Amino acid sequence: MNPSSPDPLPFHEHTARVTRELITALVTEDDTDALAAQVADIAARLSAAAADPHGVTVEDPHEVPNHIPHDITPASSARNAIAPPMAIVPDGDGYRCDLTLPLQYQGPPGRVHGGIVALMIDHLLGHAAGMDSPRRSMTRTLTLDYDGGTPINEPITVRGWIARREGRKTFLEAQILCDDEVRVRAHGLWILPREA
Amino acid sequence: MNPSSPDPLPFHEHTARVTRELITALVTEDDTDALAAQVADIAARLSAAAADPHGVTVEDPHEVPNHIPHDITPASSARNAIAPPMAIVPDGDGYRCDLTLPLQYQGPPGRVHGGIVALMIDHLLGHAAGMDSPRRSMTRTLTLDYDGGTPINEPITVRGWIARREGRKTFLEAQILCDDEVRVRAHGLWILPREA
Repeated sequence: MNPSSPDPLPFHEHTARVTRELITALVTEDDTDALAAQVADIAARLSAAAADPHGVTVEDPHEVPNHIPHDITPASSARNAIAPPMAIVPDGDGYRCDLTLPLQYQGPPGRVHGGIVALMIDHLLGHAAGMDSPRRSMTRTLTLDYDGGTPINEPITVRGWIARREGRKTFLEAQILCDDEVRVRAHGLWILPREA
Repeated sequence: MNPSSPDPLPFHEHTARVTRELITALVTEDDTDALAAQVADIAARLSAAAADPHGVTVEDPHEVPNHIPHDITPASSARNAIAPPMAIVPDGDGYRCDLTLPLQYQGPPGRVHGGIVALMIDHLLGHAAGMDSPRRSMTRTLTLDYDGGTPINEPITVRGWIARREGRKTFLEAQILCDDEVRVRAHGLWILPREA
C-alpha cells in the first residue's frame, strides 16, 4: 500500500557513514595538524571502499519503511550524510524517533540548533501525515515553541501524532523530549495535494 | 563591539568544500560504480590536502561577520559541511542571504525540504536579532507559512528583519523569495537571555 522502504545500497550507506565522521571531525578538531591526520585516515577508508564498492557490507543497516521512495532527504536518508539519519518508528497513536545528535548539529553552545529541531519535527510530522496515504502531504504551516534547550550529544526523543483530519487537511502535534521533560512543542497543518 | 567573524582555517574550509561535493555525489549518483569513481577522486583530493594542510589555500573564502565566535553551526559555518554555508549580509533594515541549494537539501521532488527552509529562516532571524547585541538571543517561538515551494538548484533569497522590540524580546519576520515571489513567510520571537 505504501511505497516501501528506501533502498540505500551498501556502498552508498557506508560512504555516508564515513562522511558523517568526517563532518564531525571538521567541527570538533580546531588544530589543523590533528584534523589533517583524521582526514588522511578517513580518505584512506573512503578510497579502500571505492576500490571494491560491491564488496562493501554495512553492519546494522538503516531501514525505515516510509512513504518516500528512494529517500535522499537530509533528515532520514541513510545515503545523505546531512541526515543523522532519523529512524522513525510507530509509537502508540503516533510516531517517534530516538537519537543523539553530534556537534555538527549545534546552534547555541551545548544545544541543538533551533533550525535542526524544526527539521526533525517537520520531517517526523510529514511522515505521520503521510504513512496511511498513497501520496505525500506537504507542510502548510508549522509553529514551534522552544520551551527549553535540546542538548547535543545526549539522547533525545522526537514524538508526533495526528490531532485531527478534515478532508485533505491533517493537523499534527509534536514534542521533543529529553530526560522525560518536554523541551520543544510544535503544531502544524499538512495538506494532501490534489491528484495531478 | 560584536565578536568578530568566524575564522575557519583554510584547511578546514577546503575540506568542508570537498565534503559538500561528496555529499552531493552520494545523493545524486544511483549507480554504485559511478559513485565509487567519484568517491575515489574526492578521497584522493582529501588525502592530498591532508598531506600538506598548511599549504592549502582557499579561493574566495567564506567570511561572514556575525555574533557567533568560531562559528561551527550547520547553517553558516564554512567548516561545517552540513551548512550551505549561508552568507548573511545587511539589506535595508534587515538582512538577506542569496543562495542556491543542491540536491542534498531536497524534501519533496524539486523542492527544498521544509525543515531546511526552517533552518535557514531560524538562523537568519537569530542573526538579525543578535547583530546589535553583545549576546546571542534564543528562539522562543517560530511560525512558518509555506505558501509555495522553494526550488532546489535555483537562486533563492532569504530575507528577515526586526518587526519590533520590547525589552529583552525581539519580534522578527522573514520571507523566502524566488523569482521575486514570496514562497514562505515566517514570524517569531527571540529572547535575550539574562546575564549569567
